[in-house]
Amino acid sequence: MYKIYEDGATLAFLDIQPVNPGHTLVVAKRHSRNIFDVPTDDWSAVTNTVRKLAGVIEKALAVDGINIHMNNREHAGQVVDHLHVHIIPRFKGDGFKLWHQSSYKKDEAVSVQTKILSRLP
Amino acid sequence: MYKIYEDGATLAFLDIQPVNPGHTLVVAKRHSRNIFDVPTDDWSAVTNTVRKLAGVIEKALAVDGINIHMNNREHAGQVVDHLHVHIIPRFKGDGFKLWHQSSYKKDEAVSVQTKILSRLP
Repeated sequence: MYKIYEDGATLAFLDIQPVNPGHTLVVAKRHSRNIFDVPTDDWSAVTNTVRKLAGVIEKALAVDGINIHMNNREHAGQVVDHLHVHIIPRFKGDGFKLWHQSSYKKDEAVSVQTKILSRLP
Repeated sequence: MYKIYEDGATLAFLDIQPVNPGHTLVVAKRHSRNIFDVPTDDWSAVTNTVRKLAGVIEKALAVDGINIHMNNREHAGQVVDHLHVHIIPRFKGDGFKLWHQSSYKKDEAVSVQTKILSRLP
């Protein structure tokens, strides 16, 4: 394991199948499956480590940008059942297109908004 | 704007060019450009809202998974110069492949690790 960082609650290491060199994974030491079950203190620790390391990796590898990415559950591409966040260095001209874009049909956005609002206190 | 959520420090609304319906953007009310310059309190507020809304959207839209995604700087796909995090609902069989995977050449991972470690206290 190519360890990058460790503190009391989190650990970070290189992804061995990187999108680009320096692609790093940040995990909580305590087990959670994903964003849906992570305790607030572990989530805070993981996201703080992500912020800190993004700045470090930017300078260390002279990257042109960084994507932060997280897969939650199998159908979102999660293959390891332990919460982890990707820090993905990007370089000018690397040519990756990370997603497609769509648009809402008439009234669809309102319908979606209504469903979400109905679940909020 | 299809607003989903607001609190003292953050705001969330539907992305009108969604990957899937319910694709939501979370922003800090106070201006930062990206993960490199965001103050720790705003980053904590944004990531807490992301965690909260991921669970809400999961239930409201019966999604099969969620990607959390963030573009930092132009060459990582950032087109609006104000920090924002994407919450992307995923559905079984939607067929999106969000990135390619590569591998390190011999000794490359050690070299990358060394560069990053040299920037850490």
